[in-house]
Amino acid sequence: MKKILILALSCVMIVSSYAQEKRDIQQSATNSVFPKGTKITNNNFTGTAYLETLINADSLNPTSVGNVTFEPGARTKWHLHPGGQILLVIDGVGYYQEKGQAKKVLRKGDVIKCPTNVAHWHGASADTGFVQVAITNRHLGETVWLQEVTDDEYKK
Amino acid sequence: MKKILILALSCVMIVSSYAQEKRDIQQSATNSVFPKGTKITNNNFTGTAYLETLINADSLNPTSVGNVTFEPGARTKWHLHPGGQILLVIDGVGYYQEKGQAKKVLRKGDVIKCPTNVAHWHGASADTGFVQVAITNRHLGETVWLQEVTDDEYKK
Repeated sequence: MKKILILALSCVMIVSSYAQEKRDIQQSATNSVFPKGTKITNNNFTGTAYLETLINADSLNPTSVGNVTFEPGARTKWHLHPGGQILLVIDGVGYYQEKGQAKKVLRKGDVIKCPTNVAHWHGASADTGFVQVAITNRHLGETVWLQEVTDDEYKK
Repeated sequence: MKKILILALSCVMIVSSYAQEKRDIQQSATNSVFPKGTKITNNNFTGTAYLETLINADSLNPTSVGNVTFEPGARTKWHLHPGGQILLVIDGVGYYQEKGQAKKVLRKGDVIKCPTNVAHWHGASADTGFVQVAITNRHLGETVWLQEVTDDEYKK
């Protein structure tokens, strides 16, 4: 009886240590490639999102690159880019929608080219966060921010 | 005795299943975010490298995006970009060098802005592969390819 107890206890300890290691690895696997950055405090977003600026635009290379992390439910307002934007999905599950089109679900490895001057929004799904790299061309002007994405629009 | 055997066997089975799951997760954690693509067959590279084109440039948004995977030792030739280039390091260990500057070691999460019209090269370290996203602006002209990076230059 004592042997069984010791064996059972050892088994529980080994399995529990493996389970912890598995959680640690899963945690690191869901981390972004780039830093999370700082909380976005302007009013162009709904919910909680973070930005790490990776590259600033300049007069010779007018492209900026930022890593944006959206918590579940967080999203941009509707907006448009005179010079267009490219989104690279790094992790999580998110949404992208152009005005008048159906909402697309985005996952790690997906890529979106937002056409110039077309209103759109992007953000996390309701249950899972979302990490994207945004590549924005600013040679034709800065981002134009529009109205909020309503809960009805978000859920549709 | 029979109970001990059954318990021991169950323990081995559970631990072995956890170990497999752990290996699977580790494997996926070291994979690139984007597809590896196809082997590059032009002569602008030394060694074996792969390209997955993520976004093509167009007249309105003149930025192309490609995921490049270099096997250990593989690198580009010296080259320059009239419109500049941005490199995002997704995985592995690589090198980046501008003409007349010291070679930089790059790791996951590092970001490089290659100035316009400055000759440079990039590639994997000798021992570890390298995965990068290259964001190239083509509004001022196409990439100009120069001479090979010699073994001496590569090792320096």
